[in-house]
Amino acid sequence: MTLQKLLSIELPIIQAPLAGVQGSSLAIAVCNAGGLGSLPCAMLSLETLQSELNAIKAGTSKPYNVNFFCHTTPAPDAAREAAWRQALAPYYAEFGIDADSIPTGPGRNPFSHEAADVLEAFKPPVVSFHFGLPTADLMQRVRSWGSKILSSATTVAEARWLEANGVDAIIAQGLEAGGHRGMFLTKDLNSQVGTFALLPQIVQAVKVPVIAAGGIADANGVAAAMRLGAAGVQIGTAYMLCPEATTSALHRTALQNCTVGATAHITALTNLFTGRPARGMVNRVMQELGSISAKAPEFPLATSALAPLRSAAEKLGRTDFTPLWSGQNVNGCKAIPAAELTLALAGTCQVISNL
Amino acid sequence: MTLQKLLSIELPIIQAPLAGVQGSSLAIAVCNAGGLGSLPCAMLSLETLQSELNAIKAGTSKPYNVNFFCHTTPAPDAAREAAWRQALAPYYAEFGIDADSIPTGPGRNPFSHEAADVLEAFKPPVVSFHFGLPTADLMQRVRSWGSKILSSATTVAEARWLEANGVDAIIAQGLEAGGHRGMFLTKDLNSQVGTFALLPQIVQAVKVPVIAAGGIADANGVAAAMRLGAAGVQIGTAYMLCPEATTSALHRTALQNCTVGATAHITALTNLFTGRPARGMVNRVMQELGSISAKAPEFPLATSALAPLRSAAEKLGRTDFTPLWSGQNVNGCKAIPAAELTLALAGTCQVISNL
Repeated sequence: MTLQKLLSIELPIIQAPLAGVQGSSLAIAVCNAGGLGSLPCAMLSLETLQSELNAIKAGTSKPYNVNFFCHTTPAPDAAREAAWRQALAPYYAEFGIDADSIPTGPGRNPFSHEAADVLEAFKPPVVSFHFGLPTADLMQRVRSWGSKILSSATTVAEARWLEANGVDAIIAQGLEAGGHRGMFLTKDLNSQVGTFALLPQIVQAVKVPVIAAGGIADANGVAAAMRLGAAGVQIGTAYMLCPEATTSALHRTALQNCTVGATAHITALTNLFTGRPARGMVNRVMQELGSISAKAPEFPLATSALAPLRSAAEKLGRTDFTPLWSGQNVNGCKAIPAAELTLALAGTCQVISNL
Repeated sequence: MTLQKLLSIELPIIQAPLAGVQGSSLAIAVCNAGGLGSLPCAMLSLETLQSELNAIKAGTSKPYNVNFFCHTTPAPDAAREAAWRQALAPYYAEFGIDADSIPTGPGRNPFSHEAADVLEAFKPPVVSFHFGLPTADLMQRVRSWGSKILSSATTVAEARWLEANGVDAIIAQGLEAGGHRGMFLTKDLNSQVGTFALLPQIVQAVKVPVIAAGGIADANGVAAAMRLGAAGVQIGTAYMLCPEATTSALHRTALQNCTVGATAHITALTNLFTGRPARGMVNRVMQELGSISAKAPEFPLATSALAPLRSAAEKLGRTDFTPLWSGQNVNGCKAIPAAELTLALAGTCQVISNL
């Protein structure tokens, strides 16, 4: 079955959920263009989740995707938290921040029955997960609404696990991809490989449709992914300059400077911002503390300690502590409406489907 | 101009030079199949270089490629060398090796006038370089024979530099690739990106033909690279199980165990074996010392310290200290004749060229 038929969409283009830099507007625009727009829900309160879903229902009659994280929130570790804040102490001093006043908290919530209660009224056509899958009872609830279920695999073993646990399609997340690595069966960063290596190996290993993600930035990239066996693609970075995205001005400028070659586009996997490895543009804190630090609290507990530094620096126009999520390929970033971008990305799908 | 026309070859397939695991036999087989076979010369004495070139001339009338490194050999650093051997001391003790008896030496030689003297009689149709380009007078000598010149770029900046310095085509070496990273304008590993990100950006930045390398393992991979703008591909890992390769039995077994899924295929960039980052399968020394160590002497001076450990461990059937060079994608590794593999890789080129 084609991905289009499985998800009832016209184009095999999924707009990647981009937590923190988009809401319903971007998703609606992509849906109305014939792709699958996604609403990132991991950072939304239940109230906002409800209002964003209302906005999507009002904005489009096409299928849409809601994306959730499904990590297990770890128990707070006071000693580790204290050590981390100690490592950040020079920064707190520099920006005049009282470290004791910083609230702790997870920052990102896993999919839950409370979230499912909100979703139930909407019966979203597609639900995608990151970091594996939720518990069997939650899976059953989602399935009962007729929602198609997607999740990300970063290794062949994860792809096989997802298939065995009942997903309808698998997102093969190559190392080029921006944002959080979806890895959930391994913590070994060496297991994470580029799209050219990952995609065909997952296609060979599973029977469900495979959606390629990572480094795909234009119609040729889409066509190339399909030559490697993808049934469709998930694209995030290219959408970040669209007017419908809520990407901050500082983040937009950073991306734009790379696309015009004013600065080199250097990204790295970093766990400093949340506790899990995620790809973003290298900035001051990543340079000074190292992109991956064993001291950072476990996901998502690392989020709170950097938050006030980010705010303080951004007020000065600096991205020293801002997670500048981005994939390795910014070639496709264009400040054009998301509908136009979606159609451009799908440009040669017709040619390929005739091969 | 197509790559085939530029290099007078029938298929847009270059067999990557694989120093240490192949000689003239593999190159000859690929040339006779219509691809471009390569002879890795960085580890050859002048005498062996001469005899290997004689073998190629006797074995094929088709164009072939000779590959050289063009690094600057650093001055020996006695203190750093001593510190490195100190770090390895527990291993020397374990294997009963007298550290003082280990010869020092570069292990790999850069392209030189002496090598050019040998080449001169052969006027090799293609000469490829790694780590940039040799000095202008050496470039001039190579050019005077009518040889076409290739070199590897790992960033857009390197591609532009190579074009400005007169290469005929550029190998875009994606992060998936096995063996040494060709990086020469940067030491920042974060600048190294996957083929999906690197290839289209280099294609966009230069006018000379671009050859894709990294993660390409079968005909679909070749076709996908061409959809991303490649004029041809360079493939290494897939050739390592061919009977014409000199891949050791231990190395073959390690690769085969991955291709049948008996062990996970985990590679990493490591500087432990030579001093420069190169991709190989993770083994004991990489796990215990970390794949990248600031203590390892500069390239190629790190080579000598691990050599006796490698020999001693291999005698016991262990790859604890063996550089198990490999790219991230072993899907294409097949123990079939190199000619057969070359034709299989080129399988869909015809379809693509008609698009």
